[in-house]
Amino acid sequence: MTDLTPTYRFAPAFQAPTGSAIRELFKYLSLPGMISFAGGYPATAFFDQPHLAAAAERALRESAVDCLQYAATDGLPLLREQLAGLMGRRGAAVTVDDLMVTTGSQQGLDLLIKVLLSPGERVLVECPTYPAALQAFRLAGLQVDSAVTDGDGLDTDSLAEQLARQPRGSLRLLYCVPTFANPTGACLPLERRLALLALAVEHDFLIVEDDPYGALRFTGQEVPSLLALAPQVDGASGRVVHLSSLSKVVAPGLRIGWLIAPAPIRQRCVIAKQTVDLCTAPWAQQIAALYLADGALERALPALARGYGEKCARMLAGLEGLSDVVQVSPPQGGMFIWGRCRGGVDASALLQRAIEERVMFVPGSPFYAAHPDASSLRLSFAAPSLEQIDEGLLRLGRAAGRLL
Amino acid sequence: MTDLTPTYRFAPAFQAPTGSAIRELFKYLSLPGMISFAGGYPATAFFDQPHLAAAAERALRESAVDCLQYAATDGLPLLREQLAGLMGRRGAAVTVDDLMVTTGSQQGLDLLIKVLLSPGERVLVECPTYPAALQAFRLAGLQVDSAVTDGDGLDTDSLAEQLARQPRGSLRLLYCVPTFANPTGACLPLERRLALLALAVEHDFLIVEDDPYGALRFTGQEVPSLLALAPQVDGASGRVVHLSSLSKVVAPGLRIGWLIAPAPIRQRCVIAKQTVDLCTAPWAQQIAALYLADGALERALPALARGYGEKCARMLAGLEGLSDVVQVSPPQGGMFIWGRCRGGVDASALLQRAIEERVMFVPGSPFYAAHPDASSLRLSFAAPSLEQIDEGLLRLGRAAGRLL
Repeated sequence: MTDLTPTYRFAPAFQAPTGSAIRELFKYLSLPGMISFAGGYPATAFFDQPHLAAAAERALRESAVDCLQYAATDGLPLLREQLAGLMGRRGAAVTVDDLMVTTGSQQGLDLLIKVLLSPGERVLVECPTYPAALQAFRLAGLQVDSAVTDGDGLDTDSLAEQLARQPRGSLRLLYCVPTFANPTGACLPLERRLALLALAVEHDFLIVEDDPYGALRFTGQEVPSLLALAPQVDGASGRVVHLSSLSKVVAPGLRIGWLIAPAPIRQRCVIAKQTVDLCTAPWAQQIAALYLADGALERALPALARGYGEKCARMLAGLEGLSDVVQVSPPQGGMFIWGRCRGGVDASALLQRAIEERVMFVPGSPFYAAHPDASSLRLSFAAPSLEQIDEGLLRLGRAAGRLL
Repeated sequence: MTDLTPTYRFAPAFQAPTGSAIRELFKYLSLPGMISFAGGYPATAFFDQPHLAAAAERALRESAVDCLQYAATDGLPLLREQLAGLMGRRGAAVTVDDLMVTTGSQQGLDLLIKVLLSPGERVLVECPTYPAALQAFRLAGLQVDSAVTDGDGLDTDSLAEQLARQPRGSLRLLYCVPTFANPTGACLPLERRLALLALAVEHDFLIVEDDPYGALRFTGQEVPSLLALAPQVDGASGRVVHLSSLSKVVAPGLRIGWLIAPAPIRQRCVIAKQTVDLCTAPWAQQIAALYLADGALERALPALARGYGEKCARMLAGLEGLSDVVQVSPPQGGMFIWGRCRGGVDASALLQRAIEERVMFVPGSPFYAAHPDASSLRLSFAAPSLEQIDEGLLRLGRAAGRLL
């Protein structure tokens, strides 16, 4: 007799996959009065709602068909022009043809993995790194190695030694967030950027530069992106893929990202995108294009960076009072403060107490490809208000007091 | 000396990938006066712009944060409720928990491939079938076999014989568009649907039912979806995955699709989506949710189906005058008429002449997994106006006259 029960079989990486550890924390968000330093959500109060509403109204009124119909897979020409212009203002000479629109920068990484890599191949990430990149690599069956970082990001001297121990070409791709990294907030200094580019040429690997936070600098000196610097290093231009997004500077709800890559890679990403979602929501693309064309983002950015800077300063000030509990590195931009619990305290144990006190953060473990530092933690100052930051840190202090 | 030129290496399926053959035709669309029967684009004149504009205005005014912030990976609860209700009206008892939102139904297929299949495994498609599904399977390194169809879709007797020659469990997945298929327009009759479900149980494979067109019936008797019928066949309920989309009935520009699958599959698709695009554009989700909640789609559907029915009838009437050139099967719904050139004429050769006459269609080859019928072609009546249908068929007649 035939067994009627379905026997589901899954791809190897999906036999028993674990979801995002950060998303697992979401259930605590709905506890009454919870203050969250956990997510990487932008501040809802900072959304430029009036100008987005104006762009949305104009988009449908003036170009309904562009909004509602299918679009070219690589994106609406008007948006690609605007994004190329934005990259130019960020110091990278990019034409419309160098760039494709993606459904958030997360999709850029997914397309690159599809196009470039096969299960078992080796990629390198910063230690610690962005968990959704780590998860994307793992679910694609890739081997993920870590590169040493310090308070300034990737330690390129260590990286040079690490690479020297391997045959040239054995590393396929290095993924990094060099500007205001998630989770560390670190900004890679100019000389390390140039060293990293030279290493990519010497050891023949691709650099994927993920840059969602770069425009959110609130202190210190501007440092050009790896993409902008590549022409200064012989042979490096063909080895940088740049991902960015409007999620942190305009709104995640648009799901608008972009990918800049050498033609052979970019063309294949477009082919892959035909099978992935055909095109990024044209309505959202048209709204974003008009918002950018109006100059609204350029006008909004200074206040945005100032606003996040103010929140960061407030959190750092509050953390000074907790210096016996947690030791942190002050960032120059972005949305995150990275730290370590003092006295051998485990960040997960602290989180349990913190949740009881109605404050949340992310323990550091999900950010490590291997050998997590159990004392590490990430605090985001982006979403909470200044008052919530003050109150949340008081609660964190109480939670820590109960542990010590 | 180190060679500075990058040596790009790609995943095996991306060494020399070919893009969509249909998208390759796009360049001819811009020729002056071109009439296209080629794409599967909905009619822009049928977009319900006033009600979409109202939903969009309300979405941002009443729920700006839902629109602009990140959303849960499986979709906004309000939209999932509306889509579950819509499935109920289509005869399938579905709860909010059975369903996840996807970035178009194309993403549903991409997630399923990621979660379920490994390179080298075998899937079965209708012959002919939807090219972007074929391409998705191929770029994932899968082996794609074809199942025989006739004017009523999948020939389930042939399929039973085909499956009987293989060990149980050797087929992982069958992908089909049973209701108004792309490209054939065929609607699988009730008894064949039940037979197909029984075969899935007997041979232990999953059916992926892609149903973007089912609501666009303009003649004949309603037939329930495979999802709706599955509970009538012992053991079949756990073997149907259903994909659908608002692209053909509301607007492709929203990129809103959905996936209904047994929990072990759906949960893994959500995990995969975390690495793919985090969530489908919340702004588009909220607009779609309010549009559906208002009852606008239900009110629009009868006129929509009537409108496409009128276009289809007009094209069929015109094709009667070309019956010495092309032989076609009249569909009961959807957007496509499938045909064969008479007299051994190659559809690609006819297309060249047709383009000179400023009319386009899609030659059938890209719809075949193997052994294409070079005489076959697909005509879409959806996008052109009634007058363009008349004029386009006159031009097609002239193009054929020059070939014969």
